[in-house]
Parts: sequence; C-alpha cells; structure tokens
Amino acid sequence: MKPVQPVGTRVLGPLAPDELDRIDAWWRAANYLSVGQIYLMDNPLLREPLRPEHVKPRLLGHWGTTPGLTFVYAHLNRAIRDRDLSMMYVIGPGHGGPGIVAAAYLDGTYTETYPEIAQDEDGLRRLFRQFSFPGGIPSHVAPETPGSIHEGGELGYALSHAYGAAFDNPDLVVACVVGDGEAETGPLATSWHSNKFLDPRRDGAVLPVLHLNGYKIANPTVLARIPETELLSLLRGYGHTPYVVAGDDPAEMHQAFAATLERCLDEIRDIQQEARGGGRVERRPWPMIVLRTPKGWTGPQEVDGQRIEGYWRSHQVPFADARGNESHRRILEDWLRGYRPEELFDGAGAPVPAIRDLHPAGGRRMSAIPHANGGLLLRDLELPDFTAYAVPVETPGTGAVEATRVLGTFLRDVMARNADRFRLFSPDENNSNRLQDVLEVTDRAWNAETLPYDDHLAPDGRVMEILSEHTCEGWLEGYLLTGRHGLFSCYEAFVHVIDSMFNQHAKWLKTTNQIPWRRPIASLNYLLTSHVWRQDHNGFSHQDPGFIDHVVNKKSDVIRVYLPPDANCLLSVADHCLRSRQYVNVIVAGKQPALQYLDMDSAVEHCTKGIGIWDWASSDGNEEPDVVMACAGDVPTMETLAAVDLLHGFFPDLRIRVVNVVDLMRLQDHREHPHGLSDADFDALFTRDRPVIFAYHGYPWLIHRLTYRRTNHDNMHVRGYKEEGTTTTPFDMTVLNQVDRFDLAIDVIDRVPGLQAHAGQAREWLRNRLIEHRRYIREHGEDLPEVRHWQWQQGAGPRLTTEQPSTRTPEG
Amino acid sequence: MKPVQPVGTRVLGPLAPDELDRIDAWWRAANYLSVGQIYLMDNPLLREPLRPEHVKPRLLGHWGTTPGLTFVYAHLNRAIRDRDLSMMYVIGPGHGGPGIVAAAYLDGTYTETYPEIAQDEDGLRRLFRQFSFPGGIPSHVAPETPGSIHEGGELGYALSHAYGAAFDNPDLVVACVVGDGEAETGPLATSWHSNKFLDPRRDGAVLPVLHLNGYKIANPTVLARIPETELLSLLRGYGHTPYVVAGDDPAEMHQAFAATLERCLDEIRDIQQEARGGGRVERRPWPMIVLRTPKGWTGPQEVDGQRIEGYWRSHQVPFADARGNESHRRILEDWLRGYRPEELFDGAGAPVPAIRDLHPAGGRRMSAIPHANGGLLLRDLELPDFTAYAVPVETPGTGAVEATRVLGTFLRDVMARNADRFRLFSPDENNSNRLQDVLEVTDRAWNAETLPYDDHLAPDGRVMEILSEHTCEGWLEGYLLTGRHGLFSCYEAFVHVIDSMFNQHAKWLKTTNQIPWRRPIASLNYLLTSHVWRQDHNGFSHQDPGFIDHVVNKKSDVIRVYLPPDANCLLSVADHCLRSRQYVNVIVAGKQPALQYLDMDSAVEHCTKGIGIWDWASSDGNEEPDVVMACAGDVPTMETLAAVDLLHGFFPDLRIRVVNVVDLMRLQDHREHPHGLSDADFDALFTRDRPVIFAYHGYPWLIHRLTYRRTNHDNMHVRGYKEEGTTTTPFDMTVLNQVDRFDLAIDVIDRVPGLQAHAGQAREWLRNRLIEHRRYIREHGEDLPEVRHWQWQQGAGPRLTTEQPSTRTPEG
Repeated sequence: MKPVQPVGTRVLGPLAPDELDRIDAWWRAANYLSVGQIYLMDNPLLREPLRPEHVKPRLLGHWGTTPGLTFVYAHLNRAIRDRDLSMMYVIGPGHGGPGIVAAAYLDGTYTETYPEIAQDEDGLRRLFRQFSFPGGIPSHVAPETPGSIHEGGELGYALSHAYGAAFDNPDLVVACVVGDGEAETGPLATSWHSNKFLDPRRDGAVLPVLHLNGYKIANPTVLARIPETELLSLLRGYGHTPYVVAGDDPAEMHQAFAATLERCLDEIRDIQQEARGGGRVERRPWPMIVLRTPKGWTGPQEVDGQRIEGYWRSHQVPFADARGNESHRRILEDWLRGYRPEELFDGAGAPVPAIRDLHPAGGRRMSAIPHANGGLLLRDLELPDFTAYAVPVETPGTGAVEATRVLGTFLRDVMARNADRFRLFSPDENNSNRLQDVLEVTDRAWNAETLPYDDHLAPDGRVMEILSEHTCEGWLEGYLLTGRHGLFSCYEAFVHVIDSMFNQHAKWLKTTNQIPWRRPIASLNYLLTSHVWRQDHNGFSHQDPGFIDHVVNKKSDVIRVYLPPDANCLLSVADHCLRSRQYVNVIVAGKQPALQYLDMDSAVEHCTKGIGIWDWASSDGNEEPDVVMACAGDVPTMETLAAVDLLHGFFPDLRIRVVNVVDLMRLQDHREHPHGLSDADFDALFTRDRPVIFAYHGYPWLIHRLTYRRTNHDNMHVRGYKEEGTTTTPFDMTVLNQVDRFDLAIDVIDRVPGLQAHAGQAREWLRNRLIEHRRYIREHGEDLPEVRHWQWQQGAGPRLTTEQPSTRTPEG
Repeated sequence: MKPVQPVGTRVLGPLAPDELDRIDAWWRAANYLSVGQIYLMDNPLLREPLRPEHVKPRLLGHWGTTPGLTFVYAHLNRAIRDRDLSMMYVIGPGHGGPGIVAAAYLDGTYTETYPEIAQDEDGLRRLFRQFSFPGGIPSHVAPETPGSIHEGGELGYALSHAYGAAFDNPDLVVACVVGDGEAETGPLATSWHSNKFLDPRRDGAVLPVLHLNGYKIANPTVLARIPETELLSLLRGYGHTPYVVAGDDPAEMHQAFAATLERCLDEIRDIQQEARGGGRVERRPWPMIVLRTPKGWTGPQEVDGQRIEGYWRSHQVPFADARGNESHRRILEDWLRGYRPEELFDGAGAPVPAIRDLHPAGGRRMSAIPHANGGLLLRDLELPDFTAYAVPVETPGTGAVEATRVLGTFLRDVMARNADRFRLFSPDENNSNRLQDVLEVTDRAWNAETLPYDDHLAPDGRVMEILSEHTCEGWLEGYLLTGRHGLFSCYEAFVHVIDSMFNQHAKWLKTTNQIPWRRPIASLNYLLTSHVWRQDHNGFSHQDPGFIDHVVNKKSDVIRVYLPPDANCLLSVADHCLRSRQYVNVIVAGKQPALQYLDMDSAVEHCTKGIGIWDWASSDGNEEPDVVMACAGDVPTMETLAAVDLLHGFFPDLRIRVVNVVDLMRLQDHREHPHGLSDADFDALFTRDRPVIFAYHGYPWLIHRLTYRRTNHDNMHVRGYKEEGTTTTPFDMTVLNQVDRFDLAIDVIDRVPGLQAHAGQAREWLRNRLIEHRRYIREHGEDLPEVRHWQWQQGAGPRLTTEQPSTRTPEG
C-alpha cells in the first residue's frame, strides 16, 4: 500500500451511520461488479467456489482507476438525491469502464437499456460475460455505456468536454474526474483555464475531481509526486479552490468526501445564486476536489510477492492467471468475497433495497440523464433564409468578395435566433477568419479581467476563443454531445492540432449510428479558412491542406468534405451543414477578396448537385469536349478559369469543359460513399477518354485515391499542393505548385492530342509569363497586374496582340 | 498605452549609465531594423524623407511581439559576455522574426552567413527588402534564420524544444521566451512540467521568460488577465520561482530586467553547483522571469484615433497604408527616427562600436551558437552489430517472438554505448511497448518525489516518459535539432496527437535540405507499436493506422516508412534508421508474440531491397504466377501466409507468388520517391496482368494511392483496415476488416481466372470457417485453436480431410 497522506483527525462527517453504510454498500457492490466483469464468465454471485471455467480465458480490462470512479459515483448519487441536482459524470479515465457499467447496472439504467442484462443472477452472468468479450461491450466506457459522452482511450479531453456540456445548461453540474495520468497531457493541462469562459448566470458548473491514484501504466504520475503545497498552488493558479480528500480507510474517506462534496456544492450554489441574483458575475475561484487514494484501492495488496494495491501493477488486470493458477484463483475469490456480495444482492441476484435506495430516480440518474444522450435534447436551429445573404453576381468570375465575411452575416443571424443552442469556436481567429459580424449580436466569452477599451468581451458572449485548438474542439464536442449546435473556424494548417480528437469523435459517431437508443446529434462543422493558398504571408509553417486526407480515412457514412468556390456556394453549403446530423462536415473556404462565380440560384443548384459542368465557362457546346478542366477549391477554380480564358484566346475552337467540384465525396465510387457518383454519371462529366486537367485545393494524390476505379482515371492529371511554399505572393504559391493558370494551360497543350504540334507559340508565351512572373515579384514584391486584376470576361479572354500565338484549332 | 503594472520605486539596478546606454542603443537598433524590415524597401538609413517608393507595396510581418524579443536578446547578450555563458535563445513567438534577424545582423552572424547582406547601407537595404519578400526570407523565424531551431508558426513547443536542447548539455543555458498566446496552448501548458525530468548535474538549464504583452491576434490573453497572485501561484505550481519585471519605461525596465536576470542566473548557477558538487540533486524550484510589457512597445500609440501600442492592433503591421497614405508614412518616419538611427549606424551604415561591443564573440553569439545548427555537433552513434541480436529462425513462419522486445535488447546496448547522445522517448509506454530491457543500463528520467519501491526512476535516467505525446515529441525534436539522436516509441493510434508537430518538423527538414550552412541532423525515428491489429483488448479508440497516410503527404525526400514483418527485419530496419540523417522514419512493428520468418542474413537482404519475393512461401517456381499475394506489416503477413497455406492445400498446382513489402515507399513511382521502384522492377514483382491480393497494415486506399500509375494497378485488390473495430479477439480484428486468411483465400478464388468454377467446395469451407470463428469467439472469448496455434508448415499446409475441397488446378 502506498503511504497515502494522513487524513489527520477522524473526520466527523455529515454521514449518519446508516447513510455511511448505504454508500459503502453501493460502493462495494459497484466494485464487486467491476471485478466480476473483468474476471468472471460464470458463477457471478459466488454461489459455489470459483472454478477455472468460471474465469474468462482472456482477461481484459482496467482495475486500477475503477474503485476511485465508483467511490465518487456513490457520493454523487447521494448528493443528487439530497439536493435534487441535475448532474452529469464525465470521466477522464475512461478505461475504468467496468465501474461505470456497474453503476449503470445498479441504477437500473443498464437493464432498461439492455433488457437481456436483467437484475438477476442470469443478468449478472451476462453482464460479466459481455465485458471485453467478443460480441459484447468494449472494455472502456464507450457509446454503448449509458451516461457516457465519450469513448475512453485517448486522454486529455475530459475537462473541455465537461465545460462544453455545461455551457448554456444553467441547471447542470458536471462532475468531471481528471485522472492524474490524463492531467499530464497538454490538452488537459490548458483546459483548466476553461473557467475563464464560463458565465455563472447562464452556464452550469463544472466540478473537477483530480484523482491522484499515483500511477500510470508503469510510472508514477507527476502531480502525485510534487509537494502538496506545489500542487495546491498550481490548482489555485488555474482558478480553483482545491479541497483535498486523501486516505485509504473507507469509513474515514466516505465522511471526508461527503463533507467536501457538500462544501463544494454549497460554494457552487453560492456563486451561481449571487450571479443570478444580480450580484457578482465576475469570475471567482470555483471549488474542486483533489482525491488521493491508492491505485487499485480495495484490491489485493500483493500477489506472488509483488506489490499490487497502491502501485502501477494494478493498472490493468492485477494478476492474469486466475483461470490456470489455483492460488491466483483463490486470491480472486477472496478479493470478491471481501466485498460481501451476500449483503449486496438478494437471492435472485438483484441489488438489495439499501443499494437501490441510494441512486436517484429516472433522468436524475447520471446513467440516464438525457444530456449524456444529447440527441434526446436536440432542437433544430432556427435558420434564417440563407439566400437572403446572397452576393449579387451579374457576370460570373468577377467581383472581390470575402466569402467567409459573407458567411459571417448569415452566422450573425443564426447566432441571434439561437442564443441558447449555437456557438462559434475559434482559436483566436474569429475576426482573422472574417466572421466578425457575429459580434454585432454577441460578444466573445470572457470572464477574466477586462479593461475599458476591450473589444466585445463579456461573460455571456457566445464566440468561444482561446488559443488552444484542443480546448475549442473539446468544448464544441461537449456542446454537441449534449444536444446543441456549433461551428469551429480554424486556420487550415493548424486544424491538424486536433487530428486525433477528430478521429475519436468520428469513431464515436460511427458507433452511435449502430446504437438505436443513441439519438442523432448535430454535426461537427469545421470551417477551414486562411487556407494553404492564401498563407503566402505567413509562410511554409501555415501551409498544409492535409486535414481533408486525414478526414476521408474515416467511415464514409460520417464524413463530408465541401470546397465551395465562392460566397454564395459557401452560404448554401453552410446552411446544409448546420441542418445535418451525425456527420463531420469539413468546409474549406477562403477569407480573402476573391471572384464570385454563381448567383444564388445557380449556387444552390450547383451545391445541391455537389459537382457540375459550368456551361458559361465551357466551350464544348454540350458535346464531347477535347479536354475537361476540373477544379475544386476557390483558388484552383480561379486558376482553372484563368487558364480557360487564355486557352479560349489561343484556340477559339478548342472544346473545353469546365467541371467544378463542391462536394468532394461526389468523386468517390457510390459503393464507397453515399454521395459518390455512379460510374455512368461520372463518365458523363469526365468522359471516358478525354484528358482531364484537375486543379485541386489540397494534395493532388487524394483525387487519384478517390477516382482510381473510374473509367477515365488514366487520363486524369491532377495539380494541387505538393508541399512547396514560403513567404511569397498569393499567385506565386500557385506557381510554386504548378497549379497556376499558365501551367494549367500548358498541361492542356501537352495533353490534348494534336494540340501540342500547333501550339508552340502559345506554349512559349505561357512559359515566358512564368519567367516574367518570377522577375516581377522579385522586383515589385507583388503579383503581375494582369494576375491581380484578372477577372473572367465571359469567354472573351485577354486578347494577346503582338505575342498572340497561333489559334489554329487542334485536330481531334 | 495599456496601463502596465508599476515598477514601484525606481530600481537601482546593476547597470552603470554607460552600460545602460549601450543596451538601450542595441535595443533601439534591433527595433529600428525590425520596423525597417517590415516596412521599407529603400532609404534604409532615412538619409532622405520617406517617399512612397521606399515603402513595400505589401506589408507582411509581426511587430507586436518583436520589441519584447529584442529587449530580452539585448540583456542576454550582456549576460553572456559578463559570465561567458553558453546560451541559446528559443522563442515561442516565432512570428517575431524580424527581431531575431535584426539581432543576428547586429551580431555579425547574418553577414557571415549571407555575405550579400553586408554591414553597410546597401546591406541594410537588402536586409530590409528581402524580409517577407518573394525570393527573400520568411516573415517568421525559420531555417533561414541563424540561431533558430524552429520555424515560427504553430505555437506550443517552445519549452519542450528548450528542454530537449538542454538535456545532456550541462554547460548550456537555454533562454526560452514563452508568449502569452502560446501559453494558452495545451502542449505548452503541460511542458512546464519538464523540470521534473531535468538532472541539474548532467543537463543544462532552461530559463523561461513568460512574456505577457497581453494580446493575441484579436483578444487579450488569459495569463495577462488573471490576478498576479493567481499567475504567480500557477507558475510556482509548475515548479518555478517567478520574478516579475513589468513596466514600459525603458530605463527602468533595463535596470529591472538586468537585475532580475542576474538573480536568475545566480540561482541557476547555485542549483547546478550544489548538485554537481555532490550536494542536493533533487529538484528545486528553478527561476523564471515574467516580463510584462506593452504589445508593440515603442511603436506608435495611436493611428487614426485607434489604439496601437499596448493593444492587439499592433500584433502584425500596425498600420498598412504607409505607401499610399502620407500621414501614415509620416507616422512611420517619426517612429523610425524615434530610435535615433544616426546614433546607431555609422556613415557607411554599419552598427557603431558601442553596439558591436555589446554582443559576445564567435560561437557565444546566440545567433551563431553551434547547438542551434545541431548538425555541426552531431556525432555518429556507436552502434553494436545488430545482427548479434538476431532471433534464430530454422523454419520460416514459426516461433512466438515479441519483435519490439528483441529490439529492446539492441536499444539497451545502443543506450549503453551512447550515454551522452541517445535517449528514448515514450508517453508512459516504454515497457508496455516491450522496450524494458533498456532499463538494465539506465533508468527513467525522474526528478520528482520518489518512494522506496519505485522502479527505475532516477534524475539521470535516459528513458523519457511523460504522459504527453506532445512533450515527448517536443523534447525529442529539441534534442535532435541540437545534434543528438533518439527514438520515440508510441501507440500507433495516439501518435496522431502529434500529427501537426510532425508536419512542422518535416517542413523544417525539407527546407534545411536546401540551406547549405544547415548541417544534417539525425533522423526523427518513430516506433509505432501496440498497433491497430493488436489493440483488440483496448477497443476502437486505440485502432487507427492513419499516421502513415499523414506522413506520406510530406516531401518524399524526408519521409520513410517501414513495416518490418518480424524481429530480425525490425533490427535491420532500426539499425538503418539510427544511422540515417534528415529523415522522418516511421517504423511500424508489433509487440505481441508473433511468427518469425527470416533468419538474420535473409532479413538483412530483404530489408536492404525493401521489397521482395519470398521464395520459400511461393509456389510459382520463379515463373509467371497465377496470383501475387502481397503483404506489408506483421499481421497482414501472417494472414497472407496462412491463406497461402490453405490455398496450397486446396490447389497444390496453383502458382502463388508471395511478395513482402518492408519499405513502403518502394511501391511508389521512382520519379515520386527516391526509394520507388522503376516500372520494370515493379512489373517484375507484381506482373503486368495477374491478380494481386494485397494485405496491408493500414487503410487500404493508401496502396492504391501509391501504385495507381503501375501497369498492373487495375488488378490490385487491397485489403487493410477499413475502420472496423471494437474490443474483441486478435483474429477477429482481421475478420472484421476482411484481411484474415479465410477472406484472403476467398479473394484469390474469386479473382484468379478459372479458379472460381472449380473451387465451390473450398469457398464454402472458407465461409464456414468464418462462421465457425464467429460462433467460437462468442462462446469461448478467444480465437479458434487452429488460428491461435497456426504456424507455417513449409508449404505443407493443414491437411483438410473430410472437408477437403476439390484440388483441381484452375486453368490459366
């Protein structure tokens, strides 16, 4: 046993003897069920001595954190009943799955959800057997676990999820266990500061419980091995009033924890009451608990002379050979009998009344609270008519519109109409990403110190900005998972910071799609802007379009990727995404002044199809073209059209078809993705045998990956970002990656059969423009005027005079 | 001006008047050069009034953080000289690039590195013009910047880089500026705890300077807006003794900072001297500085009635229209002249002697210290002969070897022989990943509290374990960038946590390859284990092989991916990677007992080729096969061979060729990757027209992405992880994703022309085994004995008796 900090004098706690007994019985029952799940496949009530065949052949699960989780659970149950609280339980140590399943089973929720796991001996047998068993349930908390809003596994997001759940839920208290392992992760370490973004009037409360059980898989934890003064200093620095409960004697610990919990809940109530009564709204230190207990508490102290309880060896299965090794089996049996199951379950195997009496009723049970199955609470957004925000477009390919700025006007009114269920999240980039108009109707959430000249900061602001992509993502996930809506705007390159968080959320969505009682939640919407092609000013570190590649590895039924070419398309796509459920929507759109192509009617039609021929830019007369010029993304679309413009000038008879892709998944096979085009439809757009020059926003090979099965794939030539960049001009970014108009036009010349023989002069002219470009930017520091001022001329194209190349039409 | 905290009484600092003047002059010069870089393209010494054409047309750069960075730089220069320190400067706010370039220019390093940027008026003109200018230098610190070990941009890694630099450099002091924006990121927030992993005897020191300038892009910062008591409490909790220097009066601030810096350096010296003199080694609070100055300090206070200095508007270019707007140009000129350039530069434009006298000489200059160009210091690892660790293999496809455990024996001896330049990094997974044998020769680094029964913890341990992938990665990057070697072992799924850090490091390597004075550094080596196929016990959250996909988006000249199928191949690959330079090497290898295929000679030959036919498993008699069965990764290799075994039993005359891929980049076109096979070599392995059944470790589409140009691509049928998983058995993971032996054998039956017609019975048998598998695991909780105990039988295969299907040879 690890020498835990002494409790000092015996706590004269708030628990009357029978109350203490009830809590302890509940805790013993939860621990018994946890050990049973990890080890047993039969004989669940130990009606007979343990035999080898009662023990699972493969032992999978985590014991170490579990008794701490059940201990807290027991006490929260009591507090919920006493105070009629609406309380959620977010546990960072999600690998302590058996404890949470055990609690849901004792609550009755488990049986209500899964009737075959009844509250009797047979149900117990099934409960034990299914755990970490093929065809059963995962070893960690998971979508299958009632009351959980995350799958245990990747650590770091407990607190940000908890705050996300608390936002706009003034009556909710989110108890959040932070493991001392998880506390070492970066995302968790900064998420403590979430309390600077909480409004005590409008939001609920988060009660963090930092659980120091001292060990990770094979190491002690940092926070358990610094002086307590240092630890408390750290937590005060995070803006909390920490209360320590430390020890290993159950009776003392029950009293101490109960007393501490009461104090914390009183303080939360006081803060909220004062703020809501018109008093102080400004941030005060929120209470929190430091719970220091042995890892694997109440488990075997030693096995084969090796320390188990209070040591890292209890992290997973404390001893593995209980099936084959009789002495181990005896230890297991003694361990289980030590919880006195005969006092906890009646003859039929149901929890005895004393245990059933502890937990709250109905939706007050943390396993059954609707917030943890957020779809139950989800209400549609009230969306204004997005077409009302349309940018007028008289001539396609003209204008200078900041697409995200236009989106911001729409989002402003979305925000105004949904002030209880919609928020924007951004790592200090909301205005940089041109969404500033939302600040006309709300502020940035801010409950730290303010100064008179501060700009739109308020405790009840609904724009969530902290320079932590992790915290933004975690807040948003928690907000969505509890039944609300939101959008995360992020620099494209730095959204990779949360690659792994996206993974876990996509996995959650995939699994919940297969669980009927999990109700659909609003989609996770990413707006990726300040994108690769317009990070010319910030340089190479800011240039990375690979998040799309990352996203499309996940299940096709949960991921969507949109590349609206202009503002009206962005409005249409955004409206669609905000209405959707159970997806991750990735929208990539520029924030810089850019050309506008489609009026609103055309944009809606185009976005509804997701892919289409732009007749106004094409010269194929609806016949088989000589070449298809495809494009996806705003800058590649502009370069494609500029190339078309040049080609029209050179070769007025060349039959060019322009295909624009908004919904990237349209490219994929319809057997691979629900949005995928059939082969016939794909061939109708891209032909079966004509060259396709495809200018794509991201890494070019993704287009190959999506289209390799298509008839005409061998003729597809894709240009995109090939990891060439630096601080330079916008157009030079496209030149460095050969996705510029001149290179695209050369690609056409080189690939249309017969064209090259007649196009020497055109090719040379294009090459010369590239040379001139390089010379010009080095001299002037900005792009060629012809590029800066280029607009589509309805196919007229810039008339080349002295340098005009041959306009002979190619054969074929 | 933001009301800064009063300094209180005038500090009677350590600086004599002339010293103060020198420091202030140096600072003014650095600021002058910074503003000049951002704004000017001509008239660098303001010999004439500013005219529009002197101002750049596109203004790109960040002023806000710069004066703080130069202020600290000036004082560090003095301290280096006074104390003859070896000091590096790691700046988190890397967007303050102009300040660091300015410092390197004043130091003389810039001119030594880039002679065309001379210390005269013409050199100044070039210095200004090149900044953020096409063909010039990036706006942030970057590989091009002498003295920097990172590219400014993605924030969060300054402190972990600084600690990585300090490890094993006892004489080095790493001054590290943490911006208050960066301080909000998760990776930075947890990296403060790095001080628990530092040995005051063997390692150098890190001196953090938390720079509170109060604002990010458009928001105040959290740490600048909490009460100072709370801030100091936080920093003490992180294990530091913080000293605050706050104000805006230059003279007072110079004295205060100089005094504080002296105190900090004294404390560092005392801690080190005591530890090194045989006294206390245990961690004590290390000093740090909190520097609170206005953002954009010394810049214009207001422009057009809008607050600039001390506000977020000074973050980038404080006012943009200095070329077109005369009043703005006047403000710019006044601002620049306010630094009194005539006192700072002589008639020729060189810094005056007083300025040149401030900076230290030669390699003591922070811009010239060799640690910041780590390749200069890099010494090869002394590597034992890896073949001495070989696992004996008499029969291929037998045994039960933990590949990473074998690697651990090799790494143990690498560690022993390179105790000054090699470390292992892992997020609490070193032993879980089976590298525990290294603990025979070293310990885990740990300088927090210890208990008597602790297991291999010591301040001078060389296994770096903290539950933060970010911190591990940052430490390793800092260690490599300063000229040492290392390896990061990580659960495959969770290495995505550092996706974005990998991005930035790969970009750094790509760029440094093009900079002659940047010397090659050791490769960044990832060992990804506990991989997707053997996370059956931890469930879906732990199952993600997508890091490979992420990596291969980066430049082919810096990335390498290896999938050694067994322990001997892993040894060979690891030896190769540890000798390599300037790469990111990704090695994916299992830790569970697995079959061994190649003896050491064969393994070396196979890994040297990177891809090859396994004759011993093939039945094509070196002729054109009926089918190619390709595999990459340990589990897919086993399943492929088991399928071959089954097929040999069914169809003894079927000509199967087994191709194993170790070096994934061999698949790519040789024009795309230096390791890529030529088309002829690829066709020789994969044929031009025979079906290829490819069992791949990761997401199957990556193989298509790598091979879509190959002759035989249309016949390639790839199986891999398709995002199906849960807690189940190991074999069931392959079944869920159809990469199991039975499905692979069915794939062959379905795709070899003519075979299907004759193989009804075999197909049915295989389908039945899949049904039996599912039944069996649900009943027993473990895999079919025939699967658990399967070993390769030299082609004899399991003899199917009663169920034996037709063995008629297919046609063709």
